[in-house]
Amino acid sequence: MSESFDSLVAQVIDLRHRLHRHPELSNRESGTRDLLESLLGAIDGVELQRLGKTSLLASVTGTGIKNAATKNAAKNTAENTGTGRTLLCRAELDALPIQEETGLPWTSENPGVMHACGHDAHMAALYAAILWYAAHRDFTGEIRFLFQEAEETEGGAVDLIDSPLFDGVDEAYAFHSINAPAGRLLIPPKRATNGVAVFRITVHGKSTHGSMPHLGIDPIRILADIIGQLAALPSNAIDPSHAASLTFGTLKAGDAANQIPDAAQATGTIRAQSHDDLQRLCEPAKTLTVTIAQAHGAHADFEYGAVDPVVNDESITRRLLAELSATLGPDAVQESGPANFSDDFGFFSDRFPGAYLLLGAGDKAQGMPYPNHSARYFVLDEAIEPAVRAWIALIGARLAA
Amino acid sequence: MSESFDSLVAQVIDLRHRLHRHPELSNRESGTRDLLESLLGAIDGVELQRLGKTSLLASVTGTGIKNAATKNAAKNTAENTGTGRTLLCRAELDALPIQEETGLPWTSENPGVMHACGHDAHMAALYAAILWYAAHRDFTGEIRFLFQEAEETEGGAVDLIDSPLFDGVDEAYAFHSINAPAGRLLIPPKRATNGVAVFRITVHGKSTHGSMPHLGIDPIRILADIIGQLAALPSNAIDPSHAASLTFGTLKAGDAANQIPDAAQATGTIRAQSHDDLQRLCEPAKTLTVTIAQAHGAHADFEYGAVDPVVNDESITRRLLAELSATLGPDAVQESGPANFSDDFGFFSDRFPGAYLLLGAGDKAQGMPYPNHSARYFVLDEAIEPAVRAWIALIGARLAA
Repeated sequence: MSESFDSLVAQVIDLRHRLHRHPELSNRESGTRDLLESLLGAIDGVELQRLGKTSLLASVTGTGIKNAATKNAAKNTAENTGTGRTLLCRAELDALPIQEETGLPWTSENPGVMHACGHDAHMAALYAAILWYAAHRDFTGEIRFLFQEAEETEGGAVDLIDSPLFDGVDEAYAFHSINAPAGRLLIPPKRATNGVAVFRITVHGKSTHGSMPHLGIDPIRILADIIGQLAALPSNAIDPSHAASLTFGTLKAGDAANQIPDAAQATGTIRAQSHDDLQRLCEPAKTLTVTIAQAHGAHADFEYGAVDPVVNDESITRRLLAELSATLGPDAVQESGPANFSDDFGFFSDRFPGAYLLLGAGDKAQGMPYPNHSARYFVLDEAIEPAVRAWIALIGARLAA
Repeated sequence: MSESFDSLVAQVIDLRHRLHRHPELSNRESGTRDLLESLLGAIDGVELQRLGKTSLLASVTGTGIKNAATKNAAKNTAENTGTGRTLLCRAELDALPIQEETGLPWTSENPGVMHACGHDAHMAALYAAILWYAAHRDFTGEIRFLFQEAEETEGGAVDLIDSPLFDGVDEAYAFHSINAPAGRLLIPPKRATNGVAVFRITVHGKSTHGSMPHLGIDPIRILADIIGQLAALPSNAIDPSHAASLTFGTLKAGDAANQIPDAAQATGTIRAQSHDDLQRLCEPAKTLTVTIAQAHGAHADFEYGAVDPVVNDESITRRLLAELSATLGPDAVQESGPANFSDDFGFFSDRFPGAYLLLGAGDKAQGMPYPNHSARYFVLDEAIEPAVRAWIALIGARLAA
């Protein structure tokens, strides 16, 4: 690409350092949003709209001059009355409650908050793609670039997914950084992440002194009963050939050994490889919790937020594998299995076909042995240019397809 | 009694207010000990010895002049080579981690610490008895007055009971305040308190991410299994006609829903009406805990501190009921059932015959509806004089018996 591409890359590496310096926690990313909004507000051909709490949508519509001939109206949804495909491309705004230990010159200036999941790099690469396509609008269709709030916590995609701003979207795409050679694209042709539900069980009993158990209802004993039953669910409710787990992370009840408390709480996670499997665990877990508590004369809540696995559209993804390999070079792209984390992009992949691509942040040989969410994890600068090229190529391929 | 008795009572009511103003937590009662030590150090006929961490023993030996004739050497133990019976009379030094809400003019000056179990009144009444008998040493025998550390927590009596300072003791006595008309003595002829064991279970598993349970050992699921088994012990290990309970008070494990923690902890209490019943619950609880954890490939600790029930010597106690009723008046004394709390005086009643008497702190009609350990509980001043009279009469009766 041109000299202007090189200057674009230099510019977004600077932006990425700036974003990394000023991380913000989920649902509080207004400073990040404001920065992107002010930068993009100065760019011709970019339309901006706020959505959710702090999210930002930047749209670029093609002029339809160059590749109008490749338009395939039959592929558009009924709502999409444009002249080509409408793509949704997403990056995440939020950082994590982690004290950074990278020792980078552009380390976090916000104590206890850190971009430890690569969202700074994701935003910078997406920003570059916006600038590129705003300057190269000789395509048919529309690209909606989403900077999404609160991917790391509950909220985020689930609160945004029904926005009318996504009406007419045909396909949805996202990149996520992962330990692998910097800039390499790892493309899972089917499932790309785990589905996960984070749950909280609260058993409401009735407090009484330990010497008078008959005057109360012990929520701890009831919670223990529930835990025993729930722990056996994956082994019994799910096809044994499917990966599934239900595990506990925390327990909390009471203040004193001699006082039966009012309530007892447990949290944990349920993981499964499909929406159906996730529901086949969450629903019986809820029923067992509520029913066991009732049987003891207590009541209990089973609250959960489920994120479906991100499932890539296999035909789109296999085509992308071939096309990106041709454009970026065979060493830059490889087929892979799913990541072992989850991502609320699952809400988008449930609604729109598309793909979720894993982007190498750097690997052990490059000095990046630390996994996502480590206080030492970051995306190497060397990964930024390949990520920008990948977005430009992916969007180009899907607009032309 | 005389004018000097009235001045004694006025003096110890002042002392009691002073003690109430300066409460100290268990094992940190050195200020209280120092105060008593300096006051008693000025009294002729009182010998002082420190013991344990902060405990104080004040001994008064009779001159044997008046009632040498009533001496019954056959009742003395082999170790007691004195000329009469040796009595141990105990009060407690420690206060509780409670922010006082009584609104008293002599309220606690130590934020978050309060004499909410009447120990200030117990000490003052015992102090008065020391002064009385130091001034009236015309008896045969010895009285050892113990100001005991750390009754409210582990330690206390269990750490002191083997002290050589108790060699030669024939009988042991204590008073404890309780909601009842101020100054009334409630005397349980057999069992006076519950036996209790405070336990802590710690299951040591192996932490792993929730997506990889096979790489760790979940201590939460194992703890749940243990809780279920332990909860059924009282119903199965104990004579159904005996009161017994095993209840849980706290749960604690982990920091994050998605991370299986290294360890999980529960605390609770076991209560029983005899030493044997208490052991019949504690030992199987420990065995079940350790064995269930082993069966899961983990290990677990079951730590407990047991306090036996205080069991009064029935023949001594029935005789005291009659004698105190005659001395103090029939309205001042009544037979009662056991208190529903426990007291580490059980270590003394296991070793020495004697009695544990409940002292009315005040009742609802007198404006004291609050139970022991309430932030509004205190012993009414009106209870002090009867308590002093009761100690003097009890000691006199047992020295003369």
